[in-house]
Amino acid sequence: MTSPLRSPVNWQTLFVNVNLATMSEGAAGYGVIEQGAIAISDGKIAWLGKEMDLPAYDKETVEVIDGNNQWLTPGLIDCHTHLIYGGDRANEFEMRLEGKSYEEIANAGGGIVSTVSATRKASEQTLFDAALKRLTALHQQGVTTVEIKSGYGLDVENEVKMLNVAGMLAKTVSVTIKRTFLGAHALPVEYKDKPDEYIDLVCNEMLPKIAQEKLADAVDVFCEGIGFDLAQTERVFACARKFGLPVKVHAEQLSNLGGSELAAKYNALSSDHIEFLDEAGISAMKKAEMTAVLLPGAFYFLRETQLPPVDLLRKHQVPMAIATDANPGSSPINNLQLMLNMACTFFRLTPAEALAGVTCHGAKALGLANSKGKFAVGFDADIACWDIKQPAELCYQFGVNPLVTLYQAGKRVI
Amino acid sequence: MTSPLRSPVNWQTLFVNVNLATMSEGAAGYGVIEQGAIAISDGKIAWLGKEMDLPAYDKETVEVIDGNNQWLTPGLIDCHTHLIYGGDRANEFEMRLEGKSYEEIANAGGGIVSTVSATRKASEQTLFDAALKRLTALHQQGVTTVEIKSGYGLDVENEVKMLNVAGMLAKTVSVTIKRTFLGAHALPVEYKDKPDEYIDLVCNEMLPKIAQEKLADAVDVFCEGIGFDLAQTERVFACARKFGLPVKVHAEQLSNLGGSELAAKYNALSSDHIEFLDEAGISAMKKAEMTAVLLPGAFYFLRETQLPPVDLLRKHQVPMAIATDANPGSSPINNLQLMLNMACTFFRLTPAEALAGVTCHGAKALGLANSKGKFAVGFDADIACWDIKQPAELCYQFGVNPLVTLYQAGKRVI
Ligand SMILES: [Zn+2]
Ligand SMILES: [Zn+2]
Repeated sequence: MTSPLRSPVNWQTLFVNVNLATMSEGAAGYGVIEQGAIAISDGKIAWLGKEMDLPAYDKETVEVIDGNNQWLTPGLIDCHTHLIYGGDRANEFEMRLEGKSYEEIANAGGGIVSTVSATRKASEQTLFDAALKRLTALHQQGVTTVEIKSGYGLDVENEVKMLNVAGMLAKTVSVTIKRTFLGAHALPVEYKDKPDEYIDLVCNEMLPKIAQEKLADAVDVFCEGIGFDLAQTERVFACARKFGLPVKVHAEQLSNLGGSELAAKYNALSSDHIEFLDEAGISAMKKAEMTAVLLPGAFYFLRETQLPPVDLLRKHQVPMAIATDANPGSSPINNLQLMLNMACTFFRLTPAEALAGVTCHGAKALGLANSKGKFAVGFDADIACWDIKQPAELCYQFGVNPLVTLYQAGKRVI
Repeated sequence: MTSPLRSPVNWQTLFVNVNLATMSEGAAGYGVIEQGAIAISDGKIAWLGKEMDLPAYDKETVEVIDGNNQWLTPGLIDCHTHLIYGGDRANEFEMRLEGKSYEEIANAGGGIVSTVSATRKASEQTLFDAALKRLTALHQQGVTTVEIKSGYGLDVENEVKMLNVAGMLAKTVSVTIKRTFLGAHALPVEYKDKPDEYIDLVCNEMLPKIAQEKLADAVDVFCEGIGFDLAQTERVFACARKFGLPVKVHAEQLSNLGGSELAAKYNALSSDHIEFLDEAGISAMKKAEMTAVLLPGAFYFLRETQLPPVDLLRKHQVPMAIATDANPGSSPINNLQLMLNMACTFFRLTPAEALAGVTCHGAKALGLANSKGKFAVGFDADIACWDIKQPAELCYQFGVNPLVTLYQAGKRVI
């Protein structure tokens, strides 16, 4: 475990008197190093191991931080969010609980249509201001990497606007942002009954522009009865491949259409939701080295009863990531620490599996498996320092935020 | 609504350009006053109404706060917590999820026995430090009144210690603390198979001392198959009455023993949990003017499926309070804002009902219906200021804390 690849003369920062949950074993455990130390050089992890095994270093040039027996984990990763949107759906939420009919709610402007309309109307600054609050909340929970999807613009101009706002956020908050183009999220009203023509727009106008301007790191599709069918999904995947962009999919949330298997054919990064996924789909995901992204916030908020196939995912050793799915319709829950508790409570993940879901497996779902989500030499020094006695506390209790300090790329940001 | 009982010459603080959710209508709605104003005099609410109806006041002597169109609600009330305890149960949580057997967990020291043991061992300072973090978290969510129960000491010395720690917290954090003596929480190991003898201890030693030293505002009993039976519960209630202390009850959580009906005979403040309560019990509660305290955190964490009888409570107009039940075993969830969301999501309360549950009805459950939980002239000026566009947002979204400022008894505390 002691791999002094980099020389102590280059260290800038060294944590001593800490316990490390390295997450280097995936879901098998936390990869614990008690009474450990971890060194940073040029924003990367330069050394980690038992404190007693530390090589000699120059106390004049290295900032030594006494961690006071805190636990250090990789900075948390929220690998599936829709953080940027106009308006909110509090009114619809209230009307539904007051027993208003579907028609009344629709007439009052409910559903994703209302979010698309509000997002289109909103300026970049308005979208930025609202999303900044959500991103800041995640950051304060120990999150150092966030994926943000487009998908409420649903036309060239507004999808680009959303991705631009994500870029503005990346410049403002010390969080690594990965942008995902989700033009195929829902059918905009102006394409009612013409989904194939809308997919033409996605493939022929949106994707080329977004690829050319490098506005996205990946491409996602909502493959579902109420979204897009398999053929439409595949058209988007094929087009993404043409532009060299990796794909992801929202699939098997409400039914099993085979979206995950299709995504596997395109070596997708992940399939997300997957409550209705079967073993054939899981097997295909395993072969394609995909990650399963579980979204307990949507499961909770929609009061779903169909659980994701956790035992089969374990059996096939498909890595499970956990994310907030933060969005105004089905998961207005901007809290990744709560997702740890919900993944354990609802899905019966072990705390080690849940923590892997927001670290190493979250990284894998974003194509960052070689740079983030673990403590290993050469990985980004994204480090969350927690006032806890054991890692399971991060999943067990909720409400007291145990984050003490947070480092992104070796720099203290909280 | 404009009731200028107190003269503007006595005002110290005046909020203008605010919207008020006065909660003066109970569950019927928020009691909204838009474009409102609210004045404070000597820590009490001195005037409230439409800003345009403000009487003349002296701008030299009154601190005028521009609320910037924020929404103001009564400070939130968490009327049922077990905030003070030693240790935690993260280890037990993890073992259960890892599939360890009941015996293995018991052998490793699981269950309430472990919390009692850790609480007895802990010093007042240790208990204080741990509880302070939880109380501070609640405070930062907009909570100005918290009930804290004893019940992990289970002997004279340690029950007194817990109530003393609650008193220390009251002196440290600007939160009103109500203390509840819950000696009859569980049977301590040294009284195994001798519950009646333990109730002797509660009635003959604990209660007299606690009453004499004025360490508690109310007395609670866990009336359940795994707690104390009806006869034992009644002995504690009768003893509490002798000392002039109001009673409360944990009842009908796992079965219907009739604890709520018994509590009604003793004019209890509240019956709490009540998933298995029937209409006869509800009717008795109504006649005794009791409050039903719903605890969605325990419902969630224990993965209960039996919902509390919300429709019957509505039919009989029994006020419903909402609380965290913060405790290490069944609700390690120190967040009252999350309880608002869970009360709506799990129990299908309307946002107005949920907000009443943590304001006016929470106050009623603590015997504070005439001083807290509403905006009304003469009530305590406990005021939470929120950056929201409508009150339902407090229940709809979770993760971004919309609290801007918090006033307790007219003094800004956050
Ligand atoms: Zn999503
Ligand atoms: Zn309780």
